[in-house]
Amino acid sequence: MKLQKNHQILIVGLGLLGGSYAEALSKQGYRVTAITLSQEDIDFAVDKGMIAGGAAFVDPTLVGAADLVIFALYPHVFKDWIKENQHLFKSGIVITDVTGVKSCIVDEIQSMLRPDVEFIAAHPMAGRECSGVQNADASIFRGANYVVTPSDKNTDGAVELCEDLGRILGFARISRLAPKEHDEIIAFVSQLTHCIAVALMTCTPAGGEYTNRLEEYTGDSFRDLTRIARLNDEMWSELFQLNKYALLHQMTVFEGELNRMRSMLELDDMDGLREMMRKSTARRALFDKKL
Amino acid sequence: MKLQKNHQILIVGLGLLGGSYAEALSKQGYRVTAITLSQEDIDFAVDKGMIAGGAAFVDPTLVGAADLVIFALYPHVFKDWIKENQHLFKSGIVITDVTGVKSCIVDEIQSMLRPDVEFIAAHPMAGRECSGVQNADASIFRGANYVVTPSDKNTDGAVELCEDLGRILGFARISRLAPKEHDEIIAFVSQLTHCIAVALMTCTPAGGEYTNRLEEYTGDSFRDLTRIARLNDEMWSELFQLNKYALLHQMTVFEGELNRMRSMLELDDMDGLREMMRKSTARRALFDKKL
Repeated sequence: MKLQKNHQILIVGLGLLGGSYAEALSKQGYRVTAITLSQEDIDFAVDKGMIAGGAAFVDPTLVGAADLVIFALYPHVFKDWIKENQHLFKSGIVITDVTGVKSCIVDEIQSMLRPDVEFIAAHPMAGRECSGVQNADASIFRGANYVVTPSDKNTDGAVELCEDLGRILGFARISRLAPKEHDEIIAFVSQLTHCIAVALMTCTPAGGEYTNRLEEYTGDSFRDLTRIARLNDEMWSELFQLNKYALLHQMTVFEGELNRMRSMLELDDMDGLREMMRKSTARRALFDKKL
Repeated sequence: MKLQKNHQILIVGLGLLGGSYAEALSKQGYRVTAITLSQEDIDFAVDKGMIAGGAAFVDPTLVGAADLVIFALYPHVFKDWIKENQHLFKSGIVITDVTGVKSCIVDEIQSMLRPDVEFIAAHPMAGRECSGVQNADASIFRGANYVVTPSDKNTDGAVELCEDLGRILGFARISRLAPKEHDEIIAFVSQLTHCIAVALMTCTPAGGEYTNRLEEYTGDSFRDLTRIARLNDEMWSELFQLNKYALLHQMTVFEGELNRMRSMLELDDMDGLREMMRKSTARRALFDKKL
C-alpha cells in the first residue's frame, strides 16, 4: 500500500517533528493539515506553505477528513487524545506516530483503538536540539534512520504504507523492529547516550572552579559528547520512565564496560587498555564505513 | 618575547600535529626544519613546502641551528630524546611540546634539562582522528584552545614566546594553567570522554545481536558520543597511565553523577530527573554561547 497524492494527511502536534513532516510532505505535493495547541503555530505553518490549513482545537471536520493521521505528541498526550477523540476518525484509516519508545505505546494504543482503524508505529531517528514548528526543517530526515515497529496486530498493507511514508520523507534507511527490540536498542543508542551527556554536563569535576570556563580548555571531545546535553526535559523524562527497565539494563552494561577500563588503569594493564582501544577503533571504523 | 621570522624552528616528530605546526608556521614565512623517524615523511613535507629541510636521524647540525624546538613525540620518546641529545642544543634556546599531560613531563624534563635551555610546556587542544604527516592540516587550530603550562622554573619571556607561538598557529584562545590544574581538567574534558566513547563502542549492549548493525538504528546521539572512539592506542594508553590518579578521580565523579540519575530513574523521581536535565540544558547553552 502506497501513500497517494489524494490522501488527506493530518498531523496532530505541530512541533519540530510534526512541522518537519508537514514541510517534507507538502513540498512533494501531498495534502497536509494539522491540529495543534497554538493558533500561532498553525498560522506560521500555513504562511510557510507547510500545511494547507489547520486548527488549534480538535476540529471534527479535519479529523474526519483524514486518511492518514500522524501523531507527534508526548506519549501521555497521545494516549489521552486517542481515548477522547478516536470516534472522529473515518473508518478504515491508518494512524502512525513518532514516539521514541514503542512497547507500551503500541500495546496501549492498539488495545484501546477501534477495530476499524489501524495504528502502525514508527520512530524517525531524527531531530534537533531545539523545538517548535519555527525550527521545522525537512532536511533533518536526510541520512537518517526510520524504524517501523509492527506488532502482530498490524497488517502488511499498513506496514508498507508506513515504510512508504519514510521513503517519501527522505530517510536514508527504513527498517523494521519488533517494539520490544526497538526499546532495547533505543535504550542503548539514544537514551543511555543522553544520560551520559547530561551527567557529564551536570558533573562538578575535580578542579571544580573551572566548571564555568570549560570552553577555555576543551577540545572537540567534550563538545562532541555533550552536544545532546541540551534537551527537552518534559519529553525525555517521560521517554526514560516508559522505557525504564531497558534503560537501567543498558546503564548497567555500560557501567560494567567503563569499570573494566577502570580496573585496567588501576592495575596498570596497558596491554588490556590498548586492546580495548583497538577493538573500539576497529568497530568505529566499520560503523563509519557503513554510514 | 616574540617569535622572530629569522628564528630557526625545529620540529621533532613530524606526525599529524608536528606536520600541522610545520604547515602553519611555514605558510606564515617562518623557517622550519624537522627531524623524524621516516625519510618518506621528511620528503613529503619538503615536497609540500611544510619544511625547508629535515632528517630521519638526529642531525647535530639541524639541532644545533635551532632557536626554538617543538617536540611532538610520545611522552616516553620525548624524555629519552632529551636525555640522549640535549647536548646538541645551542645555548639559551627555548624548547616546547604538544604533550597531552603535563605534571610528570614538566617535572622530569625540567629536572634533567641543561640550565641554559628552557622548557615551556604547552598543550594544543586540537587534533584529528587520523595520524601521520600526510593528514597534517594547519586549519585544525582554528577555533581551538591552546594551553600553556608554566612551572615556577619558567621565565616570563619563555611563556610569552610560547603564547606568541599559539597566536601565530591560529588558535582561538590562549590560556595558562599550572601543570597540575591542567592534568585535572584534561582528565575530565579529554581523557574521561575518550574512556566513555571507547566503553560505548566496545559494549555488547542487550539486544547484542544488533551490535554490528547499530548504524541502521542509530540517531545522531550515538554517532556524536563515539566520534572519538577511533584513537591511537599507543598514545592514549600512555597518556592515561601518566595521568592515572586524576583520571580515576574524574571517572569516580562522573560515575557518581550517572548513578544519581540511575537512582532517580529507579525511584521514579521524575522531578529530580527533569531538574538535572534543565541544569544540563542551561549549562550547555552557556557553553555554546561562549564557544
